[in-house]
Amino acid sequence: MSSLDDKVRDACLASRRAARAVAPRRSKDKDAALAAIAAGLEASAEAVLEANRLDLDAARARGTKGAMLDRLMLDGARVRAMASSVREVAALPDPVGEVVSRTRRPSGVDVARVRVPLGVIAMIYEARPNVTVEASTLALKAGDAIVLRGGSEAERSNAALARVIGDALESTGFPRAAVQVLPFTDRDAVRALVQQSELVDLAIPRGGEALIRFVTENARVPVVQHYKGVCHLYLDAGADLDGATKIVLNAKMSRPGVCNALECLLVDAADAERLLPPVARALAAAGCELRGCERTRALFPDAEPATADDWGREFLDAVLAVRVVDGLDAALAHVAEYGSGHTEAILTRDPEHAERWRREVDAACVVVNASTRFHDGGELGLGAEIGIATSRLHWRGPMGLEALTTMKWVIDGEGQTRG
Amino acid sequence: MSSLDDKVRDACLASRRAARAVAPRRSKDKDAALAAIAAGLEASAEAVLEANRLDLDAARARGTKGAMLDRLMLDGARVRAMASSVREVAALPDPVGEVVSRTRRPSGVDVARVRVPLGVIAMIYEARPNVTVEASTLALKAGDAIVLRGGSEAERSNAALARVIGDALESTGFPRAAVQVLPFTDRDAVRALVQQSELVDLAIPRGGEALIRFVTENARVPVVQHYKGVCHLYLDAGADLDGATKIVLNAKMSRPGVCNALECLLVDAADAERLLPPVARALAAAGCELRGCERTRALFPDAEPATADDWGREFLDAVLAVRVVDGLDAALAHVAEYGSGHTEAILTRDPEHAERWRREVDAACVVVNASTRFHDGGELGLGAEIGIATSRLHWRGPMGLEALTTMKWVIDGEGQTRG
Repeated sequence: MSSLDDKVRDACLASRRAARAVAPRRSKDKDAALAAIAAGLEASAEAVLEANRLDLDAARARGTKGAMLDRLMLDGARVRAMASSVREVAALPDPVGEVVSRTRRPSGVDVARVRVPLGVIAMIYEARPNVTVEASTLALKAGDAIVLRGGSEAERSNAALARVIGDALESTGFPRAAVQVLPFTDRDAVRALVQQSELVDLAIPRGGEALIRFVTENARVPVVQHYKGVCHLYLDAGADLDGATKIVLNAKMSRPGVCNALECLLVDAADAERLLPPVARALAAAGCELRGCERTRALFPDAEPATADDWGREFLDAVLAVRVVDGLDAALAHVAEYGSGHTEAILTRDPEHAERWRREVDAACVVVNASTRFHDGGELGLGAEIGIATSRLHWRGPMGLEALTTMKWVIDGEGQTRG
Repeated sequence: MSSLDDKVRDACLASRRAARAVAPRRSKDKDAALAAIAAGLEASAEAVLEANRLDLDAARARGTKGAMLDRLMLDGARVRAMASSVREVAALPDPVGEVVSRTRRPSGVDVARVRVPLGVIAMIYEARPNVTVEASTLALKAGDAIVLRGGSEAERSNAALARVIGDALESTGFPRAAVQVLPFTDRDAVRALVQQSELVDLAIPRGGEALIRFVTENARVPVVQHYKGVCHLYLDAGADLDGATKIVLNAKMSRPGVCNALECLLVDAADAERLLPPVARALAAAGCELRGCERTRALFPDAEPATADDWGREFLDAVLAVRVVDGLDAALAHVAEYGSGHTEAILTRDPEHAERWRREVDAACVVVNASTRFHDGGELGLGAEIGIATSRLHWRGPMGLEALTTMKWVIDGEGQTRG
């Protein structure tokens, strides 16, 4: 075993011990730790910004610019925003201890399923230093320990944030090791981290598809993946035209670069003549490039011809694939073939079609008569999220506090034995 | 890619398609398919028994005997028992469609979390042919497809059972591929199966530790593990002596070879003089070998001296490790160090100690004032189980229907867009 493996293993061992210490702590103690983190961020803003300036200098020296540099950049307002996001997490209800179900069995014992902390979370991510704070505070509130492996470009910022968090934990009687930023930023450290099957309970990779694939290929611990968001919206025959225009514009153009943005519009052939041209005109007027099938182009000739690659593609840009389909079954088949299991929407006035959509579409989030953009932790009422799961086991969609817990069975008897 | 990999992948592709077809089916349709399976088992008992005889002959020719042969053996009564277990699963409530939570958001959209089928389950197991039927029917009831990879010793029995199940599925309008028994029984087939990360949603290995480790090491899909059951029971000072004797005997001796049997008794030093000797005498009288720490042997000299290996050991036999500990904290520390996260019990009259045990012990099941043997799907009210999870993510303990489902978000609006 190489020295790096040993060091990562030692860190995870410390996390496991810390997780045991954090798990039984009361909500008010955890909230006090979070309050200390928020206060610490405000009090130590200058040290954090100084570390961030070194990261920014190094990034600029490597030629980084534009959006990448902006993602890395902290300033006073962003540090204050971090502090207030910590306070928001503290204000959320504590999921730990919730009794999910309780029954009295014929044997006379009481059986409860109780929500408990998951244990040790490994978070692998890139660039944005605010993820360090958000992930740590969600994990702590859920009673977990967390090992963070951020990107090299944010190394100094993340280390400074970890110091602030560690000091706050220590000052409120929590183990520093409950939040650890690994001082190794290469891929080998990621591999070592996600192979600690005795010590890590869940790995959450956040970043590009290559990072997520690397984690999935190498993991010996459970992984929750966030792959692409290839979101569809199906305009059913009889759909309200004004509503359709408004929702399609919102779904595609309000923020084209995010994972819940629309990537493909499906229109029922039976009503495409009425619905498609005005919706397409509104999109084009808003600056959206359309790539249509032949039937789309017959109704809206300004659309570019779609290629086979355009179906199932995540444009993350002001580009939309448009396809005329023969009714609900064809729309369901298209979504089953090309969707990524993220967000799939229908606009319909037909209650049976709405019900078939809800029932038959397999995705983290299915939407009836609203924008795909509602698939978001805040909009769904989670308060904060550590990621979005497109994998199926354990959790799907935005991962808030509950997604960072598991359950245990609690049997209460009065001396019963099993017959 | 080798030909075996291709074949396993093709089978999983067929499972994925079948899973899509099964998922939206109504409860009554799924129950009709289960009824047809039960009837088919009864009608085709002779064909199943003939296949089983060939497996038994081959096993005898290899020198298999005793318990191993018994595990493999089917007879008329066992086939009838399979059929009635299928009917019991059909009678369970369908978990699919259950609304786990529902809220109206400030945006005006309704948000529900709904239980849905998990997708494709891969089950890897050994010997017992009844697992083929139990796992298949649980998966079907939960709306999933299942790929089964049984052991070579039961190859013909499993193939015959798969034919019965396939015929029943076909006759009730379900795809045959919803239940597939892989015709490959070597380790390479297991490896190929658990690496189908696009097609398999969960792998459940059931068997010895070597099999489970092999699956865990090689998997690119989520795995639910069932490792050892190193179950402890802590006798707190002041515990009722009669109750203690009765529960310890039940926990250790009612079925010493199962995973929820007691493996280590911890006794509070403050009351060991009163509690330990009579409990130890009752165990010895029942034929249990005791392996004690020095303080145990001072109170009960007939105990063998325990070695360091005896702590944390799963004897699966009429052998019990016994240790005198200095109160609740020492008991909690012992359990945290040596327990396997399966079942941990306390006998106490102190409500605060009971509460600390419930809260601080990290295990799939914690028990207060009852036998460890209650940690069982039937006793907990699940009706039937496909396995027991000692891993933490997604599910812990006996896995019934709910453990074979996941959730999706359903957003219902009236034309809302996101601001």
